[in-house]
Formats: sequence, structure tokens, C-alpha cells
Amino acid sequence: MPDAIPPAADDPTEAIIALERAALDRWGKGDPSGFLEICAPDVVYFDPSLERRIDGRDALARYYETLRGKVSIQRYELLNPLVQRVGAAAILTFNHVSYGGGTAEHRWNCTEVYRRSGGSWEIIQTHWSHTLAVRV
Amino acid sequence: MPDAIPPAADDPTEAIIALERAALDRWGKGDPSGFLEICAPDVVYFDPSLERRIDGRDALARYYETLRGKVSIQRYELLNPLVQRVGAAAILTFNHVSYGGGTAEHRWNCTEVYRRSGGSWEIIQTHWSHTLAVRV
Repeated sequence: MPDAIPPAADDPTEAIIALERAALDRWGKGDPSGFLEICAPDVVYFDPSLERRIDGRDALARYYETLRGKVSIQRYELLNPLVQRVGAAAILTFNHVSYGGGTAEHRWNCTEVYRRSGGSWEIIQTHWSHTLAVRV
Repeated sequence: MPDAIPPAADDPTEAIIALERAALDRWGKGDPSGFLEICAPDVVYFDPSLERRIDGRDALARYYETLRGKVSIQRYELLNPLVQRVGAAAILTFNHVSYGGGTAEHRWNCTEVYRRSGGSWEIIQTHWSHTLAVRV
């Protein structure tokens, strides 16, 4: 009987969540490059301020540049993150609560699809939306 | 030299979009079972009326039952649907415009993740959100 249960080397849950948190940490300081550096060239992206899906890392980079330095998140929580593994794909979903300078909290729904590429994971799809939202 | 380029039998784009349209057609008539029948037991689900992610087909079925008979969509369009294939996973994203009884149009962002299961594809993740949304 082994001394300890071996780590589930094939389960990417912790690695994926760590990647997401590292990118979110930089995002909350106004730096979108943390996300860009782990996006694949063919990434697609939704958020509620856009009229349509953004296709491709180059287009996403242009969008993110308009936000650089403008985001300030004091702290955030990932609620109930879940990773669904399908071969070389890993689908991360979570609810997210962020707190800016004031007391207001912002609640989000998020889906990130990661794809295994060589020894690392890259984002190929991002979808952020407001939890409890209405149309503009 | 072959007479014709063989069809891309391995490209699930048309099959996935056809599945989605068939489920949407029933949805627009107030019948959520079209989606339920192609959902996997471990499906997760976001939409903007929920406080948190729904986990599992049983929970999703209970939610959908509250909507049965209440949706009426006269017509809809899938704008720029894209399928990203990663082995046994296929990620469908699109913008969606639906028209109810009046002249108002409803614009949505959607991400569906399908997983190959035997000879068919099942949804394991759904994320609907309003295009151009604000928090409640």
C-alpha cells in the first residue's frame, strides 16, 4: 500500500485554474498581456461590451490595448471552478466576483476553453458575461 | 489525381450546426426537450437570468421545465457560426438574433461545447449571454 495517493498527473484542473488566476491577477492590475500570452492564434472571444465575437489573437490584442491600464480590481473570487477534460481540450467554467475601489461587487459568468499545445495549455475560446444581466 | 476533393468527413462543422439549429427550432416553439436530448449528464449551463452556473442535466431539466411553453421565437439567425475542433471536443460559437412576436430583436452571444460520444455529439457546456448587456 503506497504511503500516499499519487497526484493525478493527468488531471489538468489545478494547472488550468492556476493559469487562469495568474492571468486574472495581471488583468486586475490593468495588464491584459497575461491573457494574451496564453491565447492561441485562433482564439475567439465574447464579452458584454462587444457587438459581436472577436476572432483571432491579433484582433483580441487590439481590443485589449484599449483596456490597458484601465482595470483595477482589488480582489476577486473564483466560485466553484470546474474543469471538464476532453482529450486535448479542457473547459473551465466558474462564477467570478470582483471588487474594485468601492464596495460594489461585480458578478460574472465565465467559460474558458483551453487546448493542449506542446507542453502547455492555450486559450482558444473566452466568454465573459454579467451574472443577472439585461440588455442595454 | 482524384476527380474531386473528397468531403471533409472529419470536419464536424455542418453536423454540429445542424444539431444546434434543430434544438433551437424546438426551443423557439416552447419545447426545451430538443436541447435536453442532446445534453450529456455532466452538462453545465449559464444564462443571464441565473445567479450561478447550473451543473448537470437533471438540474438543467428542472430549470428548462419552468420555461416550457413560454418561449415563442418567430425566426432567428445564427451569425458567423464557428466550430473549433479539438479531438473529441467541438466548440461552437455564434452570435444569435431572435425575433419574437413584435419587431424587437434580441441579440445573444453563445458558446456550446460538444463532446463526441459514440456516434453522436453531446453538449457538455452552454453559455448564453446578451450582446451588449448591463448588470441588473
